[in-house]
Amino acid sequence: MTATAPGSGPITPTAVDLPSGRAAAVPTPVPGDPALARLSLNQATVKYWNLVQAVDGCLRAGLPAIGVWREPVAEMGLAEAARLVRRSGLRVSSYCRAGFLTRPDRAEALEDNRRAIDEAAELGAPCLVMVVGGLPEGERDLAAVRERMVEVLAELVPYALERGVRLALEPLHPMFCADRAVLSTLGQALDIAERFDAEAVGVVVDAYHVWWDPQVYAQIARAGAGGRIASFQACDWELPIPSDALLGRGMVGDGHADVRGLREAVDAAGYTGDIEVEIFNERVWSADGDEVIATVARRHVQYVL
Amino acid sequence: MTATAPGSGPITPTAVDLPSGRAAAVPTPVPGDPALARLSLNQATVKYWNLVQAVDGCLRAGLPAIGVWREPVAEMGLAEAARLVRRSGLRVSSYCRAGFLTRPDRAEALEDNRRAIDEAAELGAPCLVMVVGGLPEGERDLAAVRERMVEVLAELVPYALERGVRLALEPLHPMFCADRAVLSTLGQALDIAERFDAEAVGVVVDAYHVWWDPQVYAQIARAGAGGRIASFQACDWELPIPSDALLGRGMVGDGHADVRGLREAVDAAGYTGDIEVEIFNERVWSADGDEVIATVARRHVQYVL
Repeated sequence: MTATAPGSGPITPTAVDLPSGRAAAVPTPVPGDPALARLSLNQATVKYWNLVQAVDGCLRAGLPAIGVWREPVAEMGLAEAARLVRRSGLRVSSYCRAGFLTRPDRAEALEDNRRAIDEAAELGAPCLVMVVGGLPEGERDLAAVRERMVEVLAELVPYALERGVRLALEPLHPMFCADRAVLSTLGQALDIAERFDAEAVGVVVDAYHVWWDPQVYAQIARAGAGGRIASFQACDWELPIPSDALLGRGMVGDGHADVRGLREAVDAAGYTGDIEVEIFNERVWSADGDEVIATVARRHVQYVL
Repeated sequence: MTATAPGSGPITPTAVDLPSGRAAAVPTPVPGDPALARLSLNQATVKYWNLVQAVDGCLRAGLPAIGVWREPVAEMGLAEAARLVRRSGLRVSSYCRAGFLTRPDRAEALEDNRRAIDEAAELGAPCLVMVVGGLPEGERDLAAVRERMVEVLAELVPYALERGVRLALEPLHPMFCADRAVLSTLGQALDIAERFDAEAVGVVVDAYHVWWDPQVYAQIARAGAGGRIASFQACDWELPIPSDALLGRGMVGDGHADVRGLREAVDAAGYTGDIEVEIFNERVWSADGDEVIATVARRHVQYVL
């Protein structure tokens, strides 16, 4: 990042935040900086890297943890992925993603989720993030679909408990209610989680999905009091909503959500786990991975801590 | 809609629902049909018609009510618009739309809303629909913006009461929280409305905005018990979300929301007012207005009553 021009001292180019192109507002934390102590990179943020590259990227940047996805693990093979992660010394902050409990074929839903639980256990992931699924084709009875979702979850709980994997229910933004998750608020997630042991079922607090909720601070306090916060995920709400609505997750600081307020709330509620940055965004994905991680680290200082 | 082919009886072409192009599943209700007794056309559903055309369209189809927008009223002139609507014999089910209370210039917000209240009174509209506004540029403190919104609302209440216009708070889908309405749920709208007299401040139950909410049925019951339901609006939640997210409002039956369930709930809660169909959708707008109204009437029978 420095070069020497003839006849002058070292030139330090100004770091640039990606994908915004704005000049960095704070120095990039270096490995060992306490600011990085709880910062985890969800590997979906560097989607076009494989698991080896994502692990290496975290190590280079001094991040202590990584959130791992099933697809790149499958690509590498579970045993090798588990060895890689163990050897790296990185914590696995979460394993993403299982669920889709509402699919019409219940046996398939159970089978797929049991496999994901096994994988999470092998990887040493403390929790398995569950996106519960949307409305089956042609179905309008939300209440019935939600009940079915809870029934399937209940069948998975003993299996997960035996393997020491916590199921982390993720409420998704209500704009995904029809197609991805009939679980839309933290309060609703807690109503379900509280039917089970806290070590079996927790919740994900994802800034992007919950920031708008008028009850979110009360529900974070409730989640913390019950020991239910399994994961805290940071990213921002960008506008306009892109044509693929999933990809509006922005670099923290580029959108409208009060990510710091939510981080302070989970901390005040007793959460001491990792702060995992998960960004789905074509502009982030097409940028250089190391520069993305550097921006993530700077924005963590600027907008989260 | 009928033609006589040589040597045969009358041919009745099959009616087609717009914009889906699906064959109509039920006959089109004719003027005088009790199925139309509470059906109101929000004029935004026939966006490219002026007020004269929209009124005529309602009369031709036998609809007893219309929801009127400010822009076409301004285009025609308020006094003439009021005369037109009065002479038509149509009920005005709502006047759309005021609000944007969170804008930085509070004096402008008050002035604009007072003007809208005057217009609603002149038109004989029972309620003025309020879209409360989003986050001002660069603002992330939702709680503070929500408080400001309530302060401005409180200033408007006496003015509206004097003129017999009820302010109808419309919770918008949470995907509009940043840019259009920091009011996202019916529960939150009621928390605010209940600070004022029921005749002064009510709420809008719009199927598109609230269908996903796990608390919606409980909150509809609460709204009804307090006499707070000022308006019920029908339309469907379509996927994918279009590039202009505002335009995903679909013809009832073309999406995923349980509109009948919501209609039954508002009725059970004591609501006896109009059922106003409000659709923002380029495919609906570009279709023939009379055919759109005919589809609205059929879908009302098929999916709402």
